[in-house]
Amino acid sequence: MNVSEYMQTLGQQARQAARHIAAASSGVKNQALLEIAKALDETRDYLIAENSKDLIAGKEKGLDDAMVDRLALTHAGIDGMIEGLRQVAALPDPCGETTDLKYMPSGIQVGKMRVPLGVIGIIYESRPNVTIDAASLCLKSGNATILRGGSEAIHSNQAVAKCIEVGLAKVGLPAATVQVVKTTDRAAVGELITMPDYVDVIVPRGGKSLIERISRDASVTVIKHLDGICHVYLDDEADLDKAYDIAINAKTHRYGVCNAMETLLVHQGIAAQILPRLAQGYGEKGVELRGCAQTQNIIQCKSATEEDWATEYLAPILSIKVVADIDEAMTHIAHFSSAHSESIVTQNYSTGRRFITEVDSSSVMINASTRFADGFEYGLGAEIGISTDKIHARGPVGLEGLTSQKWIVLGDGHIRQ
Amino acid sequence: MNVSEYMQTLGQQARQAARHIAAASSGVKNQALLEIAKALDETRDYLIAENSKDLIAGKEKGLDDAMVDRLALTHAGIDGMIEGLRQVAALPDPCGETTDLKYMPSGIQVGKMRVPLGVIGIIYESRPNVTIDAASLCLKSGNATILRGGSEAIHSNQAVAKCIEVGLAKVGLPAATVQVVKTTDRAAVGELITMPDYVDVIVPRGGKSLIERISRDASVTVIKHLDGICHVYLDDEADLDKAYDIAINAKTHRYGVCNAMETLLVHQGIAAQILPRLAQGYGEKGVELRGCAQTQNIIQCKSATEEDWATEYLAPILSIKVVADIDEAMTHIAHFSSAHSESIVTQNYSTGRRFITEVDSSSVMINASTRFADGFEYGLGAEIGISTDKIHARGPVGLEGLTSQKWIVLGDGHIRQ
Repeated sequence: MNVSEYMQTLGQQARQAARHIAAASSGVKNQALLEIAKALDETRDYLIAENSKDLIAGKEKGLDDAMVDRLALTHAGIDGMIEGLRQVAALPDPCGETTDLKYMPSGIQVGKMRVPLGVIGIIYESRPNVTIDAASLCLKSGNATILRGGSEAIHSNQAVAKCIEVGLAKVGLPAATVQVVKTTDRAAVGELITMPDYVDVIVPRGGKSLIERISRDASVTVIKHLDGICHVYLDDEADLDKAYDIAINAKTHRYGVCNAMETLLVHQGIAAQILPRLAQGYGEKGVELRGCAQTQNIIQCKSATEEDWATEYLAPILSIKVVADIDEAMTHIAHFSSAHSESIVTQNYSTGRRFITEVDSSSVMINASTRFADGFEYGLGAEIGISTDKIHARGPVGLEGLTSQKWIVLGDGHIRQ
Repeated sequence: MNVSEYMQTLGQQARQAARHIAAASSGVKNQALLEIAKALDETRDYLIAENSKDLIAGKEKGLDDAMVDRLALTHAGIDGMIEGLRQVAALPDPCGETTDLKYMPSGIQVGKMRVPLGVIGIIYESRPNVTIDAASLCLKSGNATILRGGSEAIHSNQAVAKCIEVGLAKVGLPAATVQVVKTTDRAAVGELITMPDYVDVIVPRGGKSLIERISRDASVTVIKHLDGICHVYLDDEADLDKAYDIAINAKTHRYGVCNAMETLLVHQGIAAQILPRLAQGYGEKGVELRGCAQTQNIIQCKSATEEDWATEYLAPILSIKVVADIDEAMTHIAHFSSAHSESIVTQNYSTGRRFITEVDSSSVMINASTRFADGFEYGLGAEIGISTDKIHARGPVGLEGLTSQKWIVLGDGHIRQ
């Protein structure tokens, strides 16, 4: 069987399994998640042995230390997967939730019922725990899943897949509910993203170049974010202590994350007051500053170029721009933001109201660190990713983002007049 | 300027205008709608004169009577557009609606705010009133719009466009908020659907071949429905009078509409009772019946082929299949339905509950005619179309389907711990 045939077969099987899992009760789905957790717990030695094959192969192939690190599956990592499964099992089932059921003038009742999307394709890189994270969210939301992990994690992912199979079998769900692609042939990705008959949504997780390629070539909807170029704007009516805390936290709490601030915008009216204090704070944390001309008049730092405003550093580097007012701040954001998360620090009610209404990003905040843009912090319980698109799902995507709503109509013999 | 440059320019202008219209108050948007209505009312003679140019050209080009009919703009048609604008003005503004605002354990408040999508591209065929229908819904939902009507309606659409311009100018909104493409070059459509930087969503309205072509070639999300192959399933525990009324109404209330029933599924337990009565009812209305072998054993009718189950007749033709039980009915629906609307007629609670949960269509009904699947009947006030996709918008799409939700976070100096 060639790759194309193989992927088509997975797709057909997933489409069939999708009807079963969509109709499965919350109890059965939860039990499946707990059985998978049990299977992982009982196969620790096997999982670690299979993972070590990947680690050895990775080192031979010359993967860098960071890559090998992400690839490694430890007992703590297995604990994390088990805990994640239990948490997802404990979340409320999004499916079947019926809202807005109202009587219409014709006498029918009309409402919306939340339902699974169908088949979700997940494409990801080296971390084997993504197999469990993604599979558990898709299963809980009543979807069938096809997972395509990185070739460097093939043994680990297949070992995890066996645990999933055991769990599904225990509760009588079809094995095709969760399928982990067995081939490392790259053509499998190209097939997966161009099977609209069998796959309803693609969720890619990985580096920007992978996601760009998938978005360009996919013929089905892709839930994705490319960049997190997040801004914090310190208004002239900001509380300076809050401004300091938020500006430091948004940049330095963690560097390699998409919701970290990359550009700080400072109103000219408070720049001379706040920037020296911030420069000292950032200096203590080892953050490199790159400022506009006005910033450089106030603090010593490198010069920021046009490119800096458009860069997601994912590193201890921050660009700083002094702006005339909120309009300049919002225009800068509209131009350079990746529409991930932006925050304003202000005590002025009207300014805050304008910012939160007019800024067009997936998360818009007042007086809070951009680091809060996260499914757990938003109370979603778990997230499959963060969407910077506006279609279907936006911002942190939890179980609800993996579902759709159908209309339901309850009549009692009603006909159109 | 070539077509590509022209469309790029429209796109750039729309993107800029989108920021303005997104920030416009409900009052300004409503006033714009009413000013457009006024401009239409005051330019009736001009509108009808321009329309007659299209009618003459259409007849010369040999358009059939039905096409010419759809193209004609009468005083009653203008009244309809004016009334439509007033109705949309009277609808609640979806933008800014903030829901689910809750305190999180960290102390931040997190909620969702409904916001415009940005720029919407509308592609449609001959009816000039679509220009107003679509523009009014997009404007009310805070989006900029690029409308591309059929070449056969170019004079009518440009005349309507002038009224829109007048209305927008009266309230100080940018002219680029609503742009009606001035060229009849077919390449304009190809450009419009492949400008993801400038267009966020495409809504095509027209025949199946147009919509299929657009869906295949578009690089942005398309909100669409291709077919309405709707089913009514008469369960063996149906109330026979309700079953009769619904089966007759779903087929014969109107034939050329997407929510008309195309296939009737009848439980074998009641087929002998209900089919002769239905055959008489359909016979009186002049509906041609095409049945499966079992149906043909009970009533006289043509034989239904495999193709019949997959056909949207949009005509007084109905295919009928006798099924063993609800499982066979739902399997038939899963295979042949276009996921538009399906209805079950039953008095059995458990059977109804299963049908409404398991059938995966944009509208699923109990004891009601499929003809209710409509934005007005569902209380949306107006609809831009019906989506048979699951992503973003499903079923009748009103103002809400033209919007997205962003997350908002209200803190008071909160940082991640």
